[in-house]
Amino acid sequence: MNYLVPIEFLAVIVSSIYGILLAARKGMDITGVYAVAFAVAFGGGTLRDLFLDRTPLFWIGNPHYPIIVFGIALFSGLILRHVSRIRPLLALPDALGMALFTLTGTGYALAAGTDPFVAVMLGVITGTFGGVLGDVICNEVPTLFVPGPLNATCAFTGAWVYLGLLRLEIPDRYALLSGLIVIVVFRILSIRRNWQFPAVREPSQPPGSK
Amino acid sequence: MNYLVPIEFLAVIVSSIYGILLAARKGMDITGVYAVAFAVAFGGGTLRDLFLDRTPLFWIGNPHYPIIVFGIALFSGLILRHVSRIRPLLALPDALGMALFTLTGTGYALAAGTDPFVAVMLGVITGTFGGVLGDVICNEVPTLFVPGPLNATCAFTGAWVYLGLLRLEIPDRYALLSGLIVIVVFRILSIRRNWQFPAVREPSQPPGSK
Amino acid sequence: MNYLVPIEFLAVIVSSIYGILLAARKGMDITGVYAVAFAVAFGGGTLRDLFLDRTPLFWIGNPHYPIIVFGIALFSGLILRHVSRIRPLLALPDALGMALFTLTGTGYALAAGTDPFVAVMLGVITGTFGGVLGDVICNEVPTLFVPGPLNATCAFTGAWVYLGLLRLEIPDRYALLSGLIVIVVFRILSIRRNWQFPAVREPSQPPGSK
Repeated sequence: MNYLVPIEFLAVIVSSIYGILLAARKGMDITGVYAVAFAVAFGGGTLRDLFLDRTPLFWIGNPHYPIIVFGIALFSGLILRHVSRIRPLLALPDALGMALFTLTGTGYALAAGTDPFVAVMLGVITGTFGGVLGDVICNEVPTLFVPGPLNATCAFTGAWVYLGLLRLEIPDRYALLSGLIVIVVFRILSIRRNWQFPAVREPSQPPGSK
Repeated sequence: MNYLVPIEFLAVIVSSIYGILLAARKGMDITGVYAVAFAVAFGGGTLRDLFLDRTPLFWIGNPHYPIIVFGIALFSGLILRHVSRIRPLLALPDALGMALFTLTGTGYALAAGTDPFVAVMLGVITGTFGGVLGDVICNEVPTLFVPGPLNATCAFTGAWVYLGLLRLEIPDRYALLSGLIVIVVFRILSIRRNWQFPAVREPSQPPGSK
Repeated sequence: MNYLVPIEFLAVIVSSIYGILLAARKGMDITGVYAVAFAVAFGGGTLRDLFLDRTPLFWIGNPHYPIIVFGIALFSGLILRHVSRIRPLLALPDALGMALFTLTGTGYALAAGTDPFVAVMLGVITGTFGGVLGDVICNEVPTLFVPGPLNATCAFTGAWVYLGLLRLEIPDRYALLSGLIVIVVFRILSIRRNWQFPAVREPSQPPGSK
C-alpha cells in the first residue's frame, strides 16, 4: 500500500490545519491548538483501534505523525496568517484523506472479522470522527451531525462500494481505487452543489387528526 | 440468559428513541440522529468493555443491534411525528433495560475479577452512561449529573443487592431477578414521586463565624 | 517506587477536590460530583492505559482509590463549605501530583516501547487530561487549552528532562526526582508570575501587502 502513503501524509496535514482553525476560533493557545489538531487528525483512527482492540494505535506505531502535527501546531500563527489563501486548497486533499481513512478503516475491520455493516461503520468513524472529537473538545455541536454538505454519507456509500467490489473478488487495489473515486467525487459534488439532509425535528404541534 | 434477550432488545430500541429525541432537539440530520442514538444505546457497554479490555465489543459481537438502530434512525421522522403517543410508553422498558444493563455489567466486571465496588461502578456505567455520552455529543451538561429523578442511584442500589445476594450464594438468576425488581421499582418511584438529590453548591458567602 | 505512594495518594485527593469544585459550579448533584471528581482524578491515566492497551486500568487495579474518591464526593458539601480555606492549600500538592503522573506515565509508555516523543505526550496526557475530561463533561472549553498559567508545558518540559537523564544512564529514581522538581518549580512559578502563552487567533483582516 506504499503508493497510499502520500495521501495519508497529506490527510494528516490537512486535518491538523482544520484542527488549528477550530482551536483558533475558540481562542486557544498552542497547547489547545496541538490537542485539537491531534484529535482531528488521529481521533477517528484511535476510536477504531480502541473498538477493534488493535495495537499499537496508528499514531503510536507511526510516531513521525504526532511530531509532524506538533510542528504544524508550532507554526499555527504563520498558517493562520495565510489562511485565506490556504483554505481553498484544503477541500480536495481533505476529501481524499477522508476517503482513504474510511476505506482502510473498513479494511482493518473486515480483517478483524467484523460483520460488513460494522466494518462500514468503523470505516466511516475512522474517516470522519476526528472532526467530531475536535468539536466536542471545543464545546461545539459536531458539524458532522447537523445539516451541511454530505460527508459521512459519502464515506458510507464509498465503503459499501469498496466492500461490494471485494465480494465480487475484484482485487483489493482496484476496489480501493473505485471506493476512493466514489467518495471523493460524491464529497466534492456535495460541497459544490450544497447537497444536504434536512434537520430531523420534533413537530412542535401535536399530530392532528388521522 | 436467553430469557433476557427480549429485555435487551427492548432496551436497545428504547435507548435509540431517546437518542433520536435528543438529537432532534439539536436540529441534527440523519447522520447525527444515528450517531446519538448509537451512543445512547451502546455507549455505556462500550465504555465498560474498553475499561475491562473485553473483546469483541457488545455491538461488534451483536451486529444486528447497530443495524436495528440504523433502521430506527431511518424512520426517525415517523417516530418523531408520533412522539407524544410513544413517549409515555418508554419509562418502563427504559427502566427495565437500564436495570438489565447495570446487572449484566456488574456481572461481567465480577467475572473479570474486579473488586466489588469497581464491579458496581462498571455496572452503573453500563446502565447509565449511554445518556451521558449522548449529552456530551449534543453539547449539554449531562442530565444524569444534575438534580432530577434518581437514576444512577437506583442502578447503584440494585447492583449492590445483586452482588450481596450472590455472596449469600443465591443462584445467579434469582439474584439477577431481585436486583432487576429493586432497580425498576426504585426508578419508577423516583420518577412518579420526583425523588432527587439537591445540587451541591459552593457557598456564595464565605463561611461565617463558627 | 513505594516512597511515591503518598504523593499519588495526595494527587488523587486534590484532583477529586478540583472535580468537586468544577461540578458544583454546574449545579450538579452527588452523582455528577462523583463522576466529575472521578474523571479529573483518573481520566488521564485511563486514557494512557487505553492508548497503551495496559490492563488492568489504574483504578481497577487500585480499587481503594475509587472508594476514596466516592468518600470525598459524599463529603463534598462539607468540603465546599470550607473551600475558601482549602483552596490555597491545593496548588502545591496538585503540582506534585501532576508531575508524578506525568513522569510515571512517560515511564509506562517507554516501558511499552513507544517512541520518546510519544512517551512524553502520553506522560503529559496522564498528568493533565483528567481536567480536560472534567471540563468536557461539564460542557466547558477545556481550561488546559486556553491561555492561563502554563501547565501542560511544565509537564512536557519535565518529561523531556526525565527522559534525557534516563538516556544519560542516570538511575531512574534520580531522573524522576529531577523531573519532579523541574515540573513543580516551573508550574508554581507559572502560577505565581502568571506565565502564559497568548491565544492563537485567525486574523480578522485579510493579510495585507507583504
